[in-house]
Amino acid sequence: MEPLCLQVDVAKGTLAGGSGRYEKRLSDLGGIYADRQAFEAMLAEGDPVVYAVEDLKPNTHPGDMIFGVTRMRPGKIGAEFFVTRGHIHATGNRPEIYYGESGTGLMQLESPAGESRLIEIRPRSVCYVPPFWIHRSINIGHDDLVMTFAYPADSGQDYDIIARAGGMKQRVIDNGQGGWTAIDNPTYRPRTAAEIERVWSTAA
Amino acid sequence: MEPLCLQVDVAKGTLAGGSGRYEKRLSDLGGIYADRQAFEAMLAEGDPVVYAVEDLKPNTHPGDMIFGVTRMRPGKIGAEFFVTRGHIHATGNRPEIYYGESGTGLMQLESPAGESRLIEIRPRSVCYVPPFWIHRSINIGHDDLVMTFAYPADSGQDYDIIARAGGMKQRVIDNGQGGWTAIDNPTYRPRTAAEIERVWSTAA
Repeated sequence: MEPLCLQVDVAKGTLAGGSGRYEKRLSDLGGIYADRQAFEAMLAEGDPVVYAVEDLKPNTHPGDMIFGVTRMRPGKIGAEFFVTRGHIHATGNRPEIYYGESGTGLMQLESPAGESRLIEIRPRSVCYVPPFWIHRSINIGHDDLVMTFAYPADSGQDYDIIARAGGMKQRVIDNGQGGWTAIDNPTYRPRTAAEIERVWSTAA
Repeated sequence: MEPLCLQVDVAKGTLAGGSGRYEKRLSDLGGIYADRQAFEAMLAEGDPVVYAVEDLKPNTHPGDMIFGVTRMRPGKIGAEFFVTRGHIHATGNRPEIYYGESGTGLMQLESPAGESRLIEIRPRSVCYVPPFWIHRSINIGHDDLVMTFAYPADSGQDYDIIARAGGMKQRVIDNGQGGWTAIDNPTYRPRTAAEIERVWSTAA
């Protein structure tokens, strides 16, 4: 395969020379936010893009890598900040690296057993998401949150793991003082021992 | 393993929170540059750092990733720009991603069969080094060249592949007009079919 040169445009959140793009609008994120009324109200006024991703997938061979750029818009559903769907890697023992380009965000992480971690991402912060951690990005700022990322090409994504548990264990909301706070998510159902074991069994 | 947050300082070329650091001084790079007289003359005046690397190696498990930041000083040995030693991955089918942070550089690539590629790296350029390409960084500017990078944790490095061939096929020199040009390296010995086959056999 030929070497490639691509160009990230941080302001636009684009990867010139990449191989793919997708975007998630609010209507794609039904059931993710706690405040359904606020969700429906925002949807009634339009269907904003919450985040968009451009990436290069050279292939999905084991040992290769995928990388790209994601741009999250700022916003809230009620008090809850815009989030990505979140996922765990379908091949569970695959990590991911997120790299802050602009804006202010959080990487929300959760182990299968329900340990929660929140890591602040600012420009030039690197967040290392170890194998077997569910992860989701949150824009806690007033501007776009732009990050670049890289992960092994054979990682795959299980996007449903969060929904199966009734959401992540915590929700991140505006604290009313210009910052954020994490609160317990009352709809969260801890994974059973069998469900946790199933995640560990996805290692390759 | 716990999630981590690290911080890149582009001006200093550092990775706060990383696990390792190494630097290469001119005396570590004997035999790399064409002009031995200019090399010895610069060495006699001191032993400057040519480049330094800080990285995080969470582990070397297959499927994990290593990342870091490299800072190359500007300079020339005779007309030849400062270069890194260069390598191919010991596990040959492992890629690498370099990401320009500041300065102006080239990624010099060579296939085992002797195809040459030169890719310019500027801030926010991403260079994708595909599996099975020998690669080396070159600072063609007047300032530090700072790049971040990521590669699979089980890649390994064969640093000797370039020396075994009498150098890379091309050398990159100052063109005397503020730019660069690539010239043939007269000491380069093309790899034999058996040597090329040996590289392909390192895939995992």
